[in-house]
Amino acid sequence: MSFAPMLETDVSVWSGESDVVVVGFGGAGACAAIAAADAGASVMVMEAASASGGSTALSSAEIYLGGGTKIQKAVGYEDSVEDVFGYLMDSNGPQADAEKIRSYAEGGPEHLDWLMSLGVPFKPSELKERAMMALTDDCLLYTGSENAWPYNERYKPAPRGHNLEVQGDNGGPLLTKILLQQVEQREVAIHYETRALRLIVNEHGPEQRVVGLAVRQNMEERYFRATIGVVLCAGGFIMNEAMVREYCPQFLDNKTQIGNPNDTGAGIQMGLSVGARAINMHEGFLSLPFYPPATLTFGIFVNGQGQRFINEDAYHGRIGSFLVNQSYPVYLILNVADYGNYETESWLQAPVVATGETLEELVSELKLPPGQLERTLERYNSDIAAGSDTLFHKDASWLKTIEAPFVALDCTPGAGAFFPCFTLGGLETTVEGAVCSVNGGVIPGLYAAGRTACGVPRRGDGYASGSSVGDATFSGRRAGRSLAAEGSL
Amino acid sequence: MSFAPMLETDVSVWSGESDVVVVGFGGAGACAAIAAADAGASVMVMEAASASGGSTALSSAEIYLGGGTKIQKAVGYEDSVEDVFGYLMDSNGPQADAEKIRSYAEGGPEHLDWLMSLGVPFKPSELKERAMMALTDDCLLYTGSENAWPYNERYKPAPRGHNLEVQGDNGGPLLTKILLQQVEQREVAIHYETRALRLIVNEHGPEQRVVGLAVRQNMEERYFRATIGVVLCAGGFIMNEAMVREYCPQFLDNKTQIGNPNDTGAGIQMGLSVGARAINMHEGFLSLPFYPPATLTFGIFVNGQGQRFINEDAYHGRIGSFLVNQSYPVYLILNVADYGNYETESWLQAPVVATGETLEELVSELKLPPGQLERTLERYNSDIAAGSDTLFHKDASWLKTIEAPFVALDCTPGAGAFFPCFTLGGLETTVEGAVCSVNGGVIPGLYAAGRTACGVPRRGDGYASGSSVGDATFSGRRAGRSLAAEGSL
Repeated sequence: MSFAPMLETDVSVWSGESDVVVVGFGGAGACAAIAAADAGASVMVMEAASASGGSTALSSAEIYLGGGTKIQKAVGYEDSVEDVFGYLMDSNGPQADAEKIRSYAEGGPEHLDWLMSLGVPFKPSELKERAMMALTDDCLLYTGSENAWPYNERYKPAPRGHNLEVQGDNGGPLLTKILLQQVEQREVAIHYETRALRLIVNEHGPEQRVVGLAVRQNMEERYFRATIGVVLCAGGFIMNEAMVREYCPQFLDNKTQIGNPNDTGAGIQMGLSVGARAINMHEGFLSLPFYPPATLTFGIFVNGQGQRFINEDAYHGRIGSFLVNQSYPVYLILNVADYGNYETESWLQAPVVATGETLEELVSELKLPPGQLERTLERYNSDIAAGSDTLFHKDASWLKTIEAPFVALDCTPGAGAFFPCFTLGGLETTVEGAVCSVNGGVIPGLYAAGRTACGVPRRGDGYASGSSVGDATFSGRRAGRSLAAEGSL
Repeated sequence: MSFAPMLETDVSVWSGESDVVVVGFGGAGACAAIAAADAGASVMVMEAASASGGSTALSSAEIYLGGGTKIQKAVGYEDSVEDVFGYLMDSNGPQADAEKIRSYAEGGPEHLDWLMSLGVPFKPSELKERAMMALTDDCLLYTGSENAWPYNERYKPAPRGHNLEVQGDNGGPLLTKILLQQVEQREVAIHYETRALRLIVNEHGPEQRVVGLAVRQNMEERYFRATIGVVLCAGGFIMNEAMVREYCPQFLDNKTQIGNPNDTGAGIQMGLSVGARAINMHEGFLSLPFYPPATLTFGIFVNGQGQRFINEDAYHGRIGSFLVNQSYPVYLILNVADYGNYETESWLQAPVVATGETLEELVSELKLPPGQLERTLERYNSDIAAGSDTLFHKDASWLKTIEAPFVALDCTPGAGAFFPCFTLGGLETTVEGAVCSVNGGVIPGLYAAGRTACGVPRRGDGYASGSSVGDATFSGRRAGRSLAAEGSL
């Protein structure tokens, strides 16, 4: 399928016009629409699905923000902009974008205020357990590796996952509902079941400017003019197998691509077709969601050499990203007592590969070098007896002697464990959201936000839950506001 | 700097014309020129430097080929196309390109014949030591991890690095000299000190076709028409700090970017500017050249947890790529006896961080978790006593008890060790070398080869020496031949 742009001179009939045309009505698109409208622009939103929400609606809609948000303060956390900045720079590794992270860290408290002003409810409370998400209506939750080694030695930890005040895994639907109401209260024309086909440009070549969008509606191709410009908020590309094979094939075999069916990279491809630059296209979130039950954290992961390779109290996405780079098999070894409610509570789906009343019995069922698990356990248990994990610095609260009876879960990719993943590469944008050109500078009339752009979260091994919805709402809002402001230049 | 294309209608005076214009006169460009000329095309080569050779001239010009080359057979190796194919598919991981690897594996013997027919000398002999390159005039050398775990269990190993018959590290200059002579014998106009500035196209938009090249010569901008098309053979982008920061920032800090000064990605950027697709832009070769002396292979690498993480008889590039993903520090622990001629022979430059008449003395100078190196050594030595490395399957020929007196080299990035690197991402091409468009299909009139394209070698941890010069000569030759053939369509 080609996303090559069309010329405005080839448009015979325009079906509509607005200052700003937003492609995609997920978290990024909704915030772009709200912000553009509030900045005085007329706005049109084009959504391929029959309803709003995109992948945000399917998520738990945790919002990763810090630096002293209203909720953090109310609960008693003193989080600083510098700790947020440092943690995000460090955890996003060499590809961290200092300008975007600085903006996100400094703007965190105000962004949460803005969401609350729209009616998004956050309760000044904290969920203290180790959880993938808050299934209570509590707000704050550690959703990254802030309080795990090595980050806890470098930056003061604070919980930054802000969960909506709603029971169960219903944050995404609630956030979607509220954002929809807010969009509907503004001068925004919403077009559902409208698939963006290609950008419309004034001309090809160096004076090219994006001036509209071609869509398919009711089985007809129609054209809408954007007098200021277009914001691409069409999600990532994890649902496009050809693109995944081309840019990040490691997310195919034995992985589960998560997102909504329209995460096909259409926004990224429309950008590329007018000369945008895409970066970080190889990266993605990749998780091993092994808690709940949190008691599995008392176990140890070992690789094909029978070695530990990570502190098991790290965020599940960090563990998944480390895990796939080990020699296989990879097992989680734990006390039967800590196996707990695995069968009813867990998302992991990793099969029990061995049990043992004795260590000898356990290892006889595992494919590991002889004697190595014994050595690893001896080291681990003697460390615990001495009071600390000297190898990987797992927090003392997660240290417990591992002893018979044992159970081993097979976490090797392909053995059955659940490895959800989505992409973290996209169009390079300025901090305002303008799309960067392969020829330098930006592409006039084109912005991008959310996972169509390459934003704050850039590495699977440094990901924190809530940083994609956080970044999508933050970057969408900023793109909408900035593009609208171009209209008065 | 913008590489945006210009229109042919904006060219007032053409300074020359040929069927095929080759950008870059390294290994890929030379072979493209030879093959295009032999296919009947008139050819022009544009080279920014004052002489030919590019990064090929700076390399040892090992040529990685197998499947039963004339030299392999003469020396007595039975290498099969399927073993070459399997090894390259496996070692290039999920991003391996099956069609390109198939073509390269099947075409290997004939490609070596072709090089020999041009006068490139290969002696039917083998260098049996573990070496970075042959400093003798011997030909065959293991330059990948074919005879190391895990590959040696999966594919029948054979040495596939073909070194030219020349003493010392002089393969690159000799190959360059021979290719230059061959080009000069053909209808090829060579322009040195000629920097490619941008592609010339017939028009912008969907009917775009590459029809020429703008260059700077003698401080003047000049225009050359390519009646069939242009082949971009301008190398990779490791010397362009801005591009490296954008696409593969892990190759900046504490690494040494190797290549010629014109590996600035100009070819890739000219491709992008006309709508080419770039892939695998995050990947590169990254080595820890820790042999010679080969005796260092008797040592063990340990990471910040005091754990081994690789079989030390793997190829130096595989070891470098694994090493940088460990917790730091990383040490190489060895017997003083195996330290050998390190100070005079080694390229490694890793400082001696500790020595010890006893293990206790050694570890007191290292930053490792207490007791862990002791356990790692105990395991390793007891494995050796029992006859095999059960953890990482290092070949028996490299197993030797590690015992006092000890020495430890600090191989942590930043501590002084040499980490040479270059890029392995580039323009997506068909197996013939036609450049693929972001809008699907290919870009008329544009081919690419060598490191400007994304070819056979795609991963640092699976790289084999000689696969870049091998791929450059192979893909350059094929691109030149295929583009020239388009002239008779």
